[in-house]
Amino acid sequence: MTYCVGIQLDRGIVFMSDTRTNSGVDNISTFRKMHSFEVPGDRSITLMTAGNLATTQALISLLQERSKHPSDRSPDILQCESMFQVARLVGGTLKEVISNHADEGQRADATFNATIILGGQVKGGAPRLFMIYPEGNFIEAGEDTPFFQIGETKYGRPIIIRAYERQMSFEEAMKLLLVSFDSTIKANLSVALPLDWHIYEADSLANGRMGRVDRDDPYFETISNGWGVALREAFGNLPPFVLPA
Amino acid sequence: MTYCVGIQLDRGIVFMSDTRTNSGVDNISTFRKMHSFEVPGDRSITLMTAGNLATTQALISLLQERSKHPSDRSPDILQCESMFQVARLVGGTLKEVISNHADEGQRADATFNATIILGGQVKGGAPRLFMIYPEGNFIEAGEDTPFFQIGETKYGRPIIIRAYERQMSFEEAMKLLLVSFDSTIKANLSVALPLDWHIYEADSLANGRMGRVDRDDPYFETISNGWGVALREAFGNLPPFVLPA
Repeated sequence: MTYCVGIQLDRGIVFMSDTRTNSGVDNISTFRKMHSFEVPGDRSITLMTAGNLATTQALISLLQERSKHPSDRSPDILQCESMFQVARLVGGTLKEVISNHADEGQRADATFNATIILGGQVKGGAPRLFMIYPEGNFIEAGEDTPFFQIGETKYGRPIIIRAYERQMSFEEAMKLLLVSFDSTIKANLSVALPLDWHIYEADSLANGRMGRVDRDDPYFETISNGWGVALREAFGNLPPFVLPA
Repeated sequence: MTYCVGIQLDRGIVFMSDTRTNSGVDNISTFRKMHSFEVPGDRSITLMTAGNLATTQALISLLQERSKHPSDRSPDILQCESMFQVARLVGGTLKEVISNHADEGQRADATFNATIILGGQVKGGAPRLFMIYPEGNFIEAGEDTPFFQIGETKYGRPIIIRAYERQMSFEEAMKLLLVSFDSTIKANLSVALPLDWHIYEADSLANGRMGRVDRDDPYFETISNGWGVALREAFGNLPPFVLPA
């Protein structure tokens, strides 16, 4: 499994992804699931991937290779004129990778599926956030649903629904995502530290700040322990249920 | 979908179930998923069901009919000598119902599946809590895992993991379950009020207190609104993330 969240704020977009991949519970590894493309002053594009690792790695490699040979007729993620065109390109490439694998042997093509969160900004447009399906089509975040989750989405969703605000600072958004990841990590073995994060600042047209929360990160430990205590306190402060006589 | 929780305390067992059934999102109904069997002074047994409604209704009807004809050779839920024997009986009956349906036509037998939470006490034994699988086998709650959830279990799980204590009062346990159900109801359309609840008091050997939390229940509204506020406060009190320079 996997857990990735992309969250749109007035100030920009915050991305966070875990790094655990597993094939069964006895074959786990650490792989980066967040990848960025940048042309400073022109665009910053970030992808997070969930699903079959062979598919998602092939997708990223294809996007990278094609961006290095702009003379090809293939469209290029570093040259698309808008985030919408980037989403079409990524969706089309994803569909191509999945159908290539499915053609060549095993028929259980669900095994090759992957889902993508794509966000960023291309000069001349606003920051935009998309979720791309294995079929290559996609949806865009809006006023009513300003964030996307992929992978193991359920455990970490209630706190995002309750605490998200579009006006949040990047610091608050990072805290919110870390709480959401902590709840997920506590409940599902196949989601694990380290966590990659990326803060895209609106209109900066550059990757900006990125980092990794490692296994022994003291802030994450503070959040993880503090959230347990805070939840129990919050729970204790709710009025008691009164049993009927 | 469905959401049911059975939670074992030092004081007894608390059961809670929602009442929504759906076949697609455009065909929803309200059905009771909690059923109790009682012989005062001898036993109190409670079942909660998730899965195919035809299967679970047939299961309950069979258990009821057979308990009314104790002269039959079929074993009787009101006469089994222990909770373990009750679990075997319910598991066997469940397996029988599912295989009957599967024999008679449609082969996608997953459609007929159901999962059961069974709890209660038979004179001479302790209160016990089981989860029964469609295959008829079952597991029992213990010191390390003192509660079972069936149906849409993920959204409501983190708060139970964080706030559960074996020494809780019934009032606290009811509050905990209502918070857990509220998080689930907010996230999944196929889980909905009203909620049925049942508090079995250890060694009472009688059903005891039962009730229903209806759509306009003022306490549930207080919990639902109060929990959102409390969560946001708890979140606000966590130390802020500090962005690297």
